[in-house]
Amino acid sequence: MSGPVLTIGTVAFDDIITPYGRQDGILGGSATHFAMAARFKYPVEIIAPIGDDFPPKYLKFLSRKNIDVSSLSRISGKSFHWKGSYDKTFADARTIKTELGVLAGFVPSLTKTQVRRDYCFLANIDPEVQLHIINKLKGPRVLASDTMNFWIESARKNLIKTFRAVDVLFINETEIKQLAEERVLLKAVNNVSRMGVETVVVKKGEHGVFLFHKGRFSFAPAYPLERIVDPTGAGDSFAGAFMSFIAASGRRLSSDLLKQALIYSCVMASFTVEGFGSSVLDRLSVSGINARLRKYKSMLITC
Amino acid sequence: MSGPVLTIGTVAFDDIITPYGRQDGILGGSATHFAMAARFKYPVEIIAPIGDDFPPKYLKFLSRKNIDVSSLSRISGKSFHWKGSYDKTFADARTIKTELGVLAGFVPSLTKTQVRRDYCFLANIDPEVQLHIINKLKGPRVLASDTMNFWIESARKNLIKTFRAVDVLFINETEIKQLAEERVLLKAVNNVSRMGVETVVVKKGEHGVFLFHKGRFSFAPAYPLERIVDPTGAGDSFAGAFMSFIAASGRRLSSDLLKQALIYSCVMASFTVEGFGSSVLDRLSVSGINARLRKYKSMLITC
Repeated sequence: MSGPVLTIGTVAFDDIITPYGRQDGILGGSATHFAMAARFKYPVEIIAPIGDDFPPKYLKFLSRKNIDVSSLSRISGKSFHWKGSYDKTFADARTIKTELGVLAGFVPSLTKTQVRRDYCFLANIDPEVQLHIINKLKGPRVLASDTMNFWIESARKNLIKTFRAVDVLFINETEIKQLAEERVLLKAVNNVSRMGVETVVVKKGEHGVFLFHKGRFSFAPAYPLERIVDPTGAGDSFAGAFMSFIAASGRRLSSDLLKQALIYSCVMASFTVEGFGSSVLDRLSVSGINARLRKYKSMLITC
Repeated sequence: MSGPVLTIGTVAFDDIITPYGRQDGILGGSATHFAMAARFKYPVEIIAPIGDDFPPKYLKFLSRKNIDVSSLSRISGKSFHWKGSYDKTFADARTIKTELGVLAGFVPSLTKTQVRRDYCFLANIDPEVQLHIINKLKGPRVLASDTMNFWIESARKNLIKTFRAVDVLFINETEIKQLAEERVLLKAVNNVSRMGVETVVVKKGEHGVFLFHKGRFSFAPAYPLERIVDPTGAGDSFAGAFMSFIAASGRRLSSDLLKQALIYSCVMASFTVEGFGSSVLDRLSVSGINARLRKYKSMLITC
């Protein structure tokens, strides 16, 4: 084992309003959701800033879940705080408020051990910070990243620079179309792949996931649910499940491995959206995962 | 062989406007699109009314494609005429004009041989007419139907009556949600299945197809295309491919057979949308179908 999967992102307070209710000040952030899903398959550690308002109970909660929080940087100021809402369609979140707090200007520092991690995930943060980390890393086996519309608009050049370094790009359907300035998904993915990414995972929400790898395409449907409560973190827990699956396999990226990772990740993300924040991933058991995996696999069309 | 697949629907003139141009008076209609796709796997015959304006060249065209048009009813009046447009997203068509012409009040009559057909498709027509045909049929092996929002709103009771008779219901995602008065697809499908249909095929356009069969779900992704020219008829050619595949197999409906039929039908529908009307299905060869089938199958995730 080559040390835990390393994720650099956010650990945050979320205020979330959905048709199923409202929760304030719950534990959120990209690194949190990533780690809460990754922990079932592989050790995981988080790099992120937290403010001096960040409660010890949340740190204890993460530690008890076997998430290494020793590299969280406690900084004087407020923790990152996001407030958003979803309507009945559960389409894109509407951001009501974003308070960067200690995230503003945060530049992560990696230890000598951390720069040699084999599996790294750069969550949706400033591409300039992503590039800073990329330059520190000493040839990880699998480097993945995520992004969002804000960076596509405001930091396009740096964002494209990251593509040459990452092995896997996670991105939403609307975002990749925006990035490629293409309405047709296939063209958008082809355009972005020509920017230098070998593997692109396009997240389509309830319509599943589209995988591009070395010029070839695959799909995985979303696990069908009767009730979606809160989609926050679905993409990050998808990425967490994905990276932990790859790490646990110990294998090089191949079309077959990626497809198996997609199956597992679709199932894990389906749990995330069934409750607020990471409440469902908190209570989840391995037997619960395996039961849904079997059900999901029985739905796939094989030929 | 138990005679051709029988389809009862429309044969029409279409005026279609899409971002790729405009075509007026082209051959369209549900039965046309169904038959143009079905003919590759199994003989097919059409029952539909045509007006005295219907040109012999269109009849010749269909006959040359091995589509049995001998049961088309020539009626004094104008042929069914639909005019619609699509925007750049190619989402639902916008109907600009519908002239029912000879379709208004048309009640199909079936020959003694036709009532004994094993494979029948009731295209999107008045549920009252669908029920009339259902009552004539002498226990087909597979009876399928399609519908649309217009009948859900105006003929709901009769529509639901048809569900008890059909083996397979083809329906769009927005339509099944409207029918079930449910926003969540899974709930909508469960509701409709409780109305008496054992197998429901939900067409999700570019997001593929969702299959419900005896309480179990499957999915098939849409074949990804760089260019969609005209989505008119995609659903009907999907149904045509599906029914011809089932008929050609000679097997009873099973989960496995339905999944194989989905694969074939997704591929066939992908050709339809690449050109106006049935122009691509017109030029299509079996080797062209098989090449795309291989490509599509390589995209599916197996476990």
